[in-house]
Amino acid sequence: MEEKEISKAVIKRLPRYYRYLGELIEEGVERISSNDLSKKMKVTASQIRQDLNNFGGFGQQGYGYNVKYLYTEIGKILGLDILHPMIILGAGNLGQALANYVDFEKRGFELVGIFDINPVLEGMGVRGIEIKMISDLPFFLKEKKVEIAVLTLPKNRAADMAEILVKNGIKAIWNFAHIDLDVPEDVIVENVHLSESLMTLSYNLSKYTRDHKEK
Amino acid sequence: MEEKEISKAVIKRLPRYYRYLGELIEEGVERISSNDLSKKMKVTASQIRQDLNNFGGFGQQGYGYNVKYLYTEIGKILGLDILHPMIILGAGNLGQALANYVDFEKRGFELVGIFDINPVLEGMGVRGIEIKMISDLPFFLKEKKVEIAVLTLPKNRAADMAEILVKNGIKAIWNFAHIDLDVPEDVIVENVHLSESLMTLSYNLSKYTRDHKEK
Repeated sequence: MEEKEISKAVIKRLPRYYRYLGELIEEGVERISSNDLSKKMKVTASQIRQDLNNFGGFGQQGYGYNVKYLYTEIGKILGLDILHPMIILGAGNLGQALANYVDFEKRGFELVGIFDINPVLEGMGVRGIEIKMISDLPFFLKEKKVEIAVLTLPKNRAADMAEILVKNGIKAIWNFAHIDLDVPEDVIVENVHLSESLMTLSYNLSKYTRDHKEK
Repeated sequence: MEEKEISKAVIKRLPRYYRYLGELIEEGVERISSNDLSKKMKVTASQIRQDLNNFGGFGQQGYGYNVKYLYTEIGKILGLDILHPMIILGAGNLGQALANYVDFEKRGFELVGIFDINPVLEGMGVRGIEIKMISDLPFFLKEKKVEIAVLTLPKNRAADMAEILVKNGIKAIWNFAHIDLDVPEDVIVENVHLSESLMTLSYNLSKYTRDHKEK
């Protein structure tokens, strides 16, 4: 398939398409019309048709989409057909929760190391991977090819850690620390700011309460 | 302060303002100009001025913003001045990570219960709160006032759980399960779809690699 530029708005929606298509495959569905997919995903059928037209010639009128083909193609666009070696920095509850998330492995994110600063954790196993000390990290990154670093360290350690990661060739950081990382432009950062998400929920909740008091 | 409608785009940026203002307070900064805040936050000063103008009359020309006042006002808009009783469904690593996140408590999110289906966990303590069985949930929700439910159960249990929560008066769900919940319109859902975030990172990483191979 020839690649063309896909708009950011479409890209943002791709993981959700990918998820629904994956569920359809699990259910044994081989083809689906944009109308049926539209009902399932609660977006308009025309939005779906427009979005999926970006991926070329599947989905003929009256014939529906080939679920598996579409799933595979979107997976390729999302880079899920390539193995991404990944390490986790911080072996606390969050780090361990992410390490134990089996679905990541299925999608090509291969956990190759877990690091912490707490010596009590050294050598403990998480999914068969021994927790190493962060002091071993530079050596580890010289020996192994690692693409993605998952940063679950406390905020006060995250900035220094990002610098070490970048120096040692990490190309992408999945950042759970509650700060904005200052990294070179060619390093990809994807933030998960949990407390900001909770604040958005709180805002909507408060707004709803206020609006209904006024009435 | 009189309330007026604030645009969604501004609301989305508020948690980030709140975070930076909180850091400034920690650093002992009492006033800050939009220019200095702009450098810190890497957004334009005019954007900051426009956004913060929504909050009325502080920030006079040449005098800067009163950091603490602004922090407090934004906190009010975000509903952080009100206590939000919260329960966590799922006492696995992720549920425990969220339970142990002390910052939530500081911002008015008071954890009042943790529930799981695994009888092995029953009675175990997380931050002084005993893990209860999910079968006790309806009774618990009748006895206690709970606003927010944090859903960290596996996807196949999340849909049923959301129904139970809604039936028992929960007004907001912070959803970590990998599905879109089907709830009445007046129930607020804020999703944290971790694997979709990781896919976005993967997309950007793959795109960067492709773009640089082409050159």
